[in-house]
Amino acid sequence: MENSMIESKAADKSTCFKDRYIERRQQSLRLTQGLDAEDMVVQSMPDASPTKWHLAHTTWFFEQFVLLPYAPNYRVFHPTFNYLFNSYYNNVGERHARPLRGLLTRPTLSQVQEYRQTIDEAVCNLLDKLNEFDPDQAKVITGTLEVGLHHEMQHQELMLTDILHALSFNKLYPPMRPVIETATSQAIPLSFESFDEGLYTIGATGKGFSFDCEYPRHQSYLPAFAIANRPITNGEWLEFIKDGGYHTSTLWLSDGWDQCQQQQWQAPLYWEQEDGGKEGGQWLQFSHYGRHAIVLNAPVCHISYYEADAYATWADARLPTEQEWEMVATRHPIKGNFQEKEQWLPQAAQLSGMQQLYGDVWEWTRSAYSPYPGYRAPAGAIGEYNGKFMSNQFVLRGGSCVTPIEQLRPSYRNFFYPHQRWQFTGLRLAKDI
Amino acid sequence: MENSMIESKAADKSTCFKDRYIERRQQSLRLTQGLDAEDMVVQSMPDASPTKWHLAHTTWFFEQFVLLPYAPNYRVFHPTFNYLFNSYYNNVGERHARPLRGLLTRPTLSQVQEYRQTIDEAVCNLLDKLNEFDPDQAKVITGTLEVGLHHEMQHQELMLTDILHALSFNKLYPPMRPVIETATSQAIPLSFESFDEGLYTIGATGKGFSFDCEYPRHQSYLPAFAIANRPITNGEWLEFIKDGGYHTSTLWLSDGWDQCQQQQWQAPLYWEQEDGGKEGGQWLQFSHYGRHAIVLNAPVCHISYYEADAYATWADARLPTEQEWEMVATRHPIKGNFQEKEQWLPQAAQLSGMQQLYGDVWEWTRSAYSPYPGYRAPAGAIGEYNGKFMSNQFVLRGGSCVTPIEQLRPSYRNFFYPHQRWQFTGLRLAKDI
Amino acid sequence: MENSMIESKAADKSTCFKDRYIERRQQSLRLTQGLDAEDMVVQSMPDASPTKWHLAHTTWFFEQFVLLPYAPNYRVFHPTFNYLFNSYYNNVGERHARPLRGLLTRPTLSQVQEYRQTIDEAVCNLLDKLNEFDPDQAKVITGTLEVGLHHEMQHQELMLTDILHALSFNKLYPPMRPVIETATSQAIPLSFESFDEGLYTIGATGKGFSFDCEYPRHQSYLPAFAIANRPITNGEWLEFIKDGGYHTSTLWLSDGWDQCQQQQWQAPLYWEQEDGGKEGGQWLQFSHYGRHAIVLNAPVCHISYYEADAYATWADARLPTEQEWEMVATRHPIKGNFQEKEQWLPQAAQLSGMQQLYGDVWEWTRSAYSPYPGYRAPAGAIGEYNGKFMSNQFVLRGGSCVTPIEQLRPSYRNFFYPHQRWQFTGLRLAKDI
Amino acid sequence: MENSMIESKAADKSTCFKDRYIERRQQSLRLTQGLDAEDMVVQSMPDASPTKWHLAHTTWFFEQFVLLPYAPNYRVFHPTFNYLFNSYYNNVGERHARPLRGLLTRPTLSQVQEYRQTIDEAVCNLLDKLNEFDPDQAKVITGTLEVGLHHEMQHQELMLTDILHALSFNKLYPPMRPVIETATSQAIPLSFESFDEGLYTIGATGKGFSFDCEYPRHQSYLPAFAIANRPITNGEWLEFIKDGGYHTSTLWLSDGWDQCQQQQWQAPLYWEQEDGGKEGGQWLQFSHYGRHAIVLNAPVCHISYYEADAYATWADARLPTEQEWEMVATRHPIKGNFQEKEQWLPQAAQLSGMQQLYGDVWEWTRSAYSPYPGYRAPAGAIGEYNGKFMSNQFVLRGGSCVTPIEQLRPSYRNFFYPHQRWQFTGLRLAKDI
Repeated sequence: MENSMIESKAADKSTCFKDRYIERRQQSLRLTQGLDAEDMVVQSMPDASPTKWHLAHTTWFFEQFVLLPYAPNYRVFHPTFNYLFNSYYNNVGERHARPLRGLLTRPTLSQVQEYRQTIDEAVCNLLDKLNEFDPDQAKVITGTLEVGLHHEMQHQELMLTDILHALSFNKLYPPMRPVIETATSQAIPLSFESFDEGLYTIGATGKGFSFDCEYPRHQSYLPAFAIANRPITNGEWLEFIKDGGYHTSTLWLSDGWDQCQQQQWQAPLYWEQEDGGKEGGQWLQFSHYGRHAIVLNAPVCHISYYEADAYATWADARLPTEQEWEMVATRHPIKGNFQEKEQWLPQAAQLSGMQQLYGDVWEWTRSAYSPYPGYRAPAGAIGEYNGKFMSNQFVLRGGSCVTPIEQLRPSYRNFFYPHQRWQFTGLRLAKDI
Repeated sequence: MENSMIESKAADKSTCFKDRYIERRQQSLRLTQGLDAEDMVVQSMPDASPTKWHLAHTTWFFEQFVLLPYAPNYRVFHPTFNYLFNSYYNNVGERHARPLRGLLTRPTLSQVQEYRQTIDEAVCNLLDKLNEFDPDQAKVITGTLEVGLHHEMQHQELMLTDILHALSFNKLYPPMRPVIETATSQAIPLSFESFDEGLYTIGATGKGFSFDCEYPRHQSYLPAFAIANRPITNGEWLEFIKDGGYHTSTLWLSDGWDQCQQQQWQAPLYWEQEDGGKEGGQWLQFSHYGRHAIVLNAPVCHISYYEADAYATWADARLPTEQEWEMVATRHPIKGNFQEKEQWLPQAAQLSGMQQLYGDVWEWTRSAYSPYPGYRAPAGAIGEYNGKFMSNQFVLRGGSCVTPIEQLRPSYRNFFYPHQRWQFTGLRLAKDI
Repeated sequence: MENSMIESKAADKSTCFKDRYIERRQQSLRLTQGLDAEDMVVQSMPDASPTKWHLAHTTWFFEQFVLLPYAPNYRVFHPTFNYLFNSYYNNVGERHARPLRGLLTRPTLSQVQEYRQTIDEAVCNLLDKLNEFDPDQAKVITGTLEVGLHHEMQHQELMLTDILHALSFNKLYPPMRPVIETATSQAIPLSFESFDEGLYTIGATGKGFSFDCEYPRHQSYLPAFAIANRPITNGEWLEFIKDGGYHTSTLWLSDGWDQCQQQQWQAPLYWEQEDGGKEGGQWLQFSHYGRHAIVLNAPVCHISYYEADAYATWADARLPTEQEWEMVATRHPIKGNFQEKEQWLPQAAQLSGMQQLYGDVWEWTRSAYSPYPGYRAPAGAIGEYNGKFMSNQFVLRGGSCVTPIEQLRPSYRNFFYPHQRWQFTGLRLAKDI
Repeated sequence: MENSMIESKAADKSTCFKDRYIERRQQSLRLTQGLDAEDMVVQSMPDASPTKWHLAHTTWFFEQFVLLPYAPNYRVFHPTFNYLFNSYYNNVGERHARPLRGLLTRPTLSQVQEYRQTIDEAVCNLLDKLNEFDPDQAKVITGTLEVGLHHEMQHQELMLTDILHALSFNKLYPPMRPVIETATSQAIPLSFESFDEGLYTIGATGKGFSFDCEYPRHQSYLPAFAIANRPITNGEWLEFIKDGGYHTSTLWLSDGWDQCQQQQWQAPLYWEQEDGGKEGGQWLQFSHYGRHAIVLNAPVCHISYYEADAYATWADARLPTEQEWEMVATRHPIKGNFQEKEQWLPQAAQLSGMQQLYGDVWEWTRSAYSPYPGYRAPAGAIGEYNGKFMSNQFVLRGGSCVTPIEQLRPSYRNFFYPHQRWQFTGLRLAKDI
């Protein structure tokens, strides 16, 4: 496990690390505010997981990869939990079938909370005694803990996206959180900023944490291109709908058109037209705040890659590559509407200049999720983290309004299948020059 | 709604009826003892429903079919509940998709309990004022309430069978109830009692409650036959397994053999061999009492019609028809191991003579569930109760250890699809003479 | 193989039997007139088989069950044909997967014709030497040959129904045969004939050939009932369509409604409305004679059990039981529009009195296909012929315009699944009195 | 249709073009030698098409895109053929469902041959009068004809791969062609040739025909790498099998492992072990020459991307990118074992140096099939040719033993889904330096 993903580049002192650890772990519990124990059991599709399962699985990660190998005299919390809460690590044995996670009524939520507390105490104990370890080993321990925290961040985002999907099937339209004030804003005109062709350096810098798939840093030749100043908005998406976008096969990729027809897509996920689409019905959206009217100037969200690509074709543009996106993003500070702001609904852009590269919505790129030149998956179970998913998925960049801000950096590569829509996914246009 | 199913033949006085109503409704809540709120949310397959859904749906039945039409000034409890808790009555509008009942985290359990209490109070109020109604209408009201109580009984049984199925997917093998003492008994030898050919009268007598499908009472000509003194036991089933019963195509119905191979049946549902079936591994069973060894002299349970039929062929016998079963059953008192005994595991027979016709396990008959001669489904929503299921299902008779005793009578016709196994289903052999 | 199905009751002399054998076998080839070799390869669904496969499979039946066991020194025609042309006899080994029969381009049609000729010569040789056998064995041989001929008749009908289904997918609407003159006739008013209640004798008489499932002859008690004088016509079915029959859930069995919605049934199979159902479009039908207008006074055909049952409910009637049908049918001579007339389209009734009990369309009964009292499946492979299909299917009676007349008798029980529509299936109403 | 794909860069004179046209079209018919008309009807899976359909569809292409728009007074051959033989061009209307192509018994083979002849004569007439057209329009006509010929070449390869798949289901193992002498050769040791990092130019040169997706020619930065001197052989693949390659999850991409388990892959497609895999059974392969032993030193063939990737991981290497492959290939002449040699089985390498870049087996690259920088799909129906498939597929390079040699050039990009195995697909290893 001696790769860049594991060795935390930042030489965190263990005490401040312990505070970060506790804070990050408590955030997971804070995110469940507004949910009842019953809400946390259910799984609405194989792609999603129950809230309770997320809480247990992230805990299992620390137990399995930190405590069991490194904590002296640590005894496993429950012999069956490795079976129940392993997600996809073939290296660590048999596991509960993914599509059946919603049947795990036991352990109950309070037992899972107890599990979390026990593991957190053991991790803190381990951190307190970190100076008793050989320095190299201590480095591996904090490195693995760092992976665990970033893993926790990813699941914090998933908890929010998965529960939204689960609640969306309920005609009671239950809000998870009290309604927020949505900023009403002026529409910012769409414009394009140009960039010169050239050899650019892409990938993780090695400063701070990055996942293995962001390495190695390498050169990539980009032709001249232009990129939009902001994501496409709900209002612009409505134009696409009105122009027959969902019924015009020539705008779509072949696989996308198949999906569009099979799933009978008519609008982004969670959109519903009042009166079932009779002429003039207002478009409503289900979110963590219940059901409400869509906000025209806010970025469109919950669209598949196929829809994003069809829109770009319709708009006589294209999606950016991940290299283009990253090159632009390194020129801008990481700020925006992230999870911590507790506005879990993309917000309308407020300023001029390059807007919302970070936060609000993940931006589909046209880049398939592939290994960077020279990439090698790390050995062992941790090596299953990223490398084995490098087929059939597309890269998304920039984070969303439910992403923890600490997780973001210009080189961060998120990835999903092109038909998936339950993440906070939107699009930004690009053009060849 | 003026059919035999609705008009209660027993002229219950409304006060004693109120007690029965309250008692029956409270029994539903008592059955949830041992379950956590989280257990009550989940649905393990489309055929089964969540405990919470059962609690709400049975309540909706009284609200929809009694309170809304008859209770003066009654206001609907919640406008969306008709959508959420209608099971299959096309007559009363659109409804939540059956396979997605497990996503209904809201209303929460405590809200459903409140729903139950509100409806029960309104029903009791209605019963208190029954003498203010026209006598004919009062009769319809009590008749419909009677249907509602029998409907509640059916769901009480389903609550127990469905939760067992849901818990069975959990490798923690959670017991719902503390372990009970299982009677160890002698094996009672299998013997056959003979009956003469002749014209017999079949169907509901009109005394006490019966469902529409038990009518009309009619004559049926039966050839001479013999029927076994008790159901087939786990021990006898083991012989079938050891003799290759699950791998001998010629014993099976064609559709049954397809199922057996597709589902890779090797034993009754909930059976598992220690060490995954290595030579000599003990057979264990999952029940409401957790996982434990099978009891050799207890009736085999959780088998499909196809398995029952294959066993009978293997044993050079056949299953009885429902007419044969009913004719024999009318000659015996209704007693046995029913839900109220709280031994939710079939018990070994203890005596000589005809054993366990009632209780312990439902007995598959070879009779397809068809209309009796002259049967007509009642008009309206109540007419959807039985008649529309008269294809592709087989009749079971006698009730099981999770059936409320009040539900049973010789003419009672239960029915399931021949591949289904999650009910407490067993078999009794018959023979031609 | 010493059961009633095998022992031909008719003491056919072997010479006249040989003529019958040759005639019956040649009829199979005659039925392929109008087809190209390419037509005979394809399989349009797992339920249907290619024409060429039928030609080979019926031949294999004689080779497998007559020549190999009884013909001295007979050598198998091709070692792989048992694998390729066994239909469903688990007793005689592994076989080619049923849904993949349409991939058997080899053997070619001419090789299959050669196979037929070789086997026919060997059977004729055997028949010529029948007097050299022990009389009991000779009886078994002719009995098995008799089964083979009835098996051939069944496949002759299937050849015609299967090829119609295969050709129906082709927008060229290829006629298999030149157009026939369709009798234009007056509508005969629907009326009902009544029958008294009583004990009736049902099942094969033992005179002439019958299949095992028609035995034992037994008594059955029937209440009084009335039965229609003719099948329901296309014109009457149009009324059902216009009255919203395909969109009224309360008319349907629950499983039927599911099918109706999933398959989007709007009319009988092979019906298509000109201009895709725009107001006023004429209803067309695809048949062996290409595409043409429906004949209003001819019996409706290619409907499922579910549709037949829904129609009966809509018409305030019901389907007859198979016992009722048989009791009536024994009172009428076996004549009507059968395969040999080469009018493979149901014809309008022409006379008064009880019409079309035999021929034109198979009539769905409300009787599930179950064993008669005392029925036991024969031992060995022949025992797989009927008994193993006794679940989930419904009995049809009377034969159709593509049934060989020799196959029909009052006790003949045909059976199909309630969702199947590609057979020549119609309905006759009955009523309780 | 005025893009590079349409405008043939080579200024072919129309007479020599006519010869090429006739020759290419006749080749399609020559490829069917050894097949019976019945073989040409069937479709073994939705991905494959019947031989007869290929013959008709390629003809339809010329009729639809050349004759109907350009040939004066041309009348459509048959009004329904556009419906039957359009493959996937949404722009030109409704079409016969792809998975049901195997049901098109009509038109018969001889009618399709007549269709070919009629269209070929009309095309030759058009070519004879080409000088009567405006020069720009003449250029478009020959350009479209050129696309049609390359389209024909692609279908010539598909005809051979699809019929092999169809015949493979038949236990008669029918050879399409008489057995060929397979060269027995020495094993050539695997070695790697290194290339420097740098900016390389990739894509179609504009000399001669290329498809739209090979444009625009552009620069790409490649790190230093090494590439193997020849494809992996059957013998090397056997080592992978023996080392448990098909049972070691950690070698596989996640989606690949799912496929491997669901499909129970144990070896390349068309491999079968004698005696069903009992110890010591020889590995046999089904090919156009029937069933025979695998040739150890020949390139492994009929493997999915997932298998190729798993092998590379097992061998501590990786697959090349398409840019790497193309850069190397431009340094070597286009020669090898192509369709015209009529050795439709990959042959063992015979020499030293870089072997078999062209011919024998298509080589999987690790590059997802994506648009080149600046790519835009052409307008109109021809624009559906390539661009709409740019998701979820991987690029293959180099052609195979069933590819027409004329089709090949260094920039040619073939693409298939990563789970597909019925093409002549193999792999060549690469390494980072």
